[in-house]
Amino acid sequence: MKTIEVCLTPDMLRYHDLSNKTVVVIDIFRATSCIVTALAHGVQSILPVATVAEAKLLQAKGYLTAAERQGSKVEGFDLDNSPFSYLKPELKGKTIGLTTSNGTQAIRSAQDAGAYEVLIGSFLNIQALQTYLQKSADAICLLCAGWKGKVNLEDTFFAGAVLANLPEFTSMNDDCVLALATYQQGLDNPVRFLESSAHYHRLETLGNRDDITFCLQRSIYHNVPVLRGDSLVNM
Amino acid sequence: MKTIEVCLTPDMLRYHDLSNKTVVVIDIFRATSCIVTALAHGVQSILPVATVAEAKLLQAKGYLTAAERQGSKVEGFDLDNSPFSYLKPELKGKTIGLTTSNGTQAIRSAQDAGAYEVLIGSFLNIQALQTYLQKSADAICLLCAGWKGKVNLEDTFFAGAVLANLPEFTSMNDDCVLALATYQQGLDNPVRFLESSAHYHRLETLGNRDDITFCLQRSIYHNVPVLRGDSLVNM
Repeated sequence: MKTIEVCLTPDMLRYHDLSNKTVVVIDIFRATSCIVTALAHGVQSILPVATVAEAKLLQAKGYLTAAERQGSKVEGFDLDNSPFSYLKPELKGKTIGLTTSNGTQAIRSAQDAGAYEVLIGSFLNIQALQTYLQKSADAICLLCAGWKGKVNLEDTFFAGAVLANLPEFTSMNDDCVLALATYQQGLDNPVRFLESSAHYHRLETLGNRDDITFCLQRSIYHNVPVLRGDSLVNM
Repeated sequence: MKTIEVCLTPDMLRYHDLSNKTVVVIDIFRATSCIVTALAHGVQSILPVATVAEAKLLQAKGYLTAAERQGSKVEGFDLDNSPFSYLKPELKGKTIGLTTSNGTQAIRSAQDAGAYEVLIGSFLNIQALQTYLQKSADAICLLCAGWKGKVNLEDTFFAGAVLANLPEFTSMNDDCVLALATYQQGLDNPVRFLESSAHYHRLETLGNRDDITFCLQRSIYHNVPVLRGDSLVNM
């Protein structure tokens, strides 16, 4: 039996045994959308780290580094986590250190919890992700990064979208039913639906409406980032 | 502004400031349905305690005591947490000590977190509860008891039902959107929808299908249990 479960926030990871699971980390606004975009546009690898201090260490070692907190770039770093910042040709072939409020912590949490495999999911690469999961995964955990430990709407909505497209996987927890219901409620008009999310308003207030629109595009990229050691690279 | 928030499991209470809030504890299958039923049928008060050891202490003091773990009565106690066990005339006027897997812990957690007021919600008293909230509450937290820390479907579904009926309260977190979506998806056929929940199967396996049907009846009782000191009594 092929199985799938949803973890609504990294805070709830304690209830999930990840040892034999393919974990998909989801941080739609904006870390995982940003990682997919960067690697789709030729960035060679991304080093996700949990803290600003770790990002500073990478910077000291000569890496380009990106750091976001509270939705904005942390002063002193090279890049933020807007996908638009990763379209520049001069980033091709580079390795970039990255820390964000939620997404990079979730990636590290999945690794620390002994995940068999850690993948990066977003609407931008949803079809490629699903194709890989259908072919190669037996047990999946969709890990929503949430916002500072709390549940968030856009990551849950995405988890529901993946669930809806993988009916051959048996749902293993009630989080799946919540995610699927959330997806089905918002399906007809995702932008309007997600306008009720807390983080949408946070980003909009910060002037990042274009980022929201960008991150909700479906399958414009075909790469599936995977964690190899400490680096995210294309599969 | 009147506000409402949902806390999907007691594990997430750390993200909620309950100090000025009316907290509604929700454990549909079956603790809060059982408490409403008992007090509706003349039980004078219920002493909710978190642990079996505390229930034993109450028993030693001469109280009737009820204890449930894993969906079944704990050996040596007088009662389980099936609503049907509380219909007996001989319980009228009694005080009963109660511990359950999730619900009584959630009640204690809300109290420990400094809630302004702790109420008991279930489908059995949903109309009376809503009427009270509309008249008397300014800030509400709907606290789902979940299952051993995890999110569950039936409690989330109920939280969504209350949200749907209190449009004059402004939703304060994304958990609200998830709960409302869950309710809207299951609204047309709640029994069928809740068949996809993990705890439904747990109870059904234990032969408690009648309890499920009982607990999903709407507004058959008109009492609103409230925590006064360490006792649950009718408002």
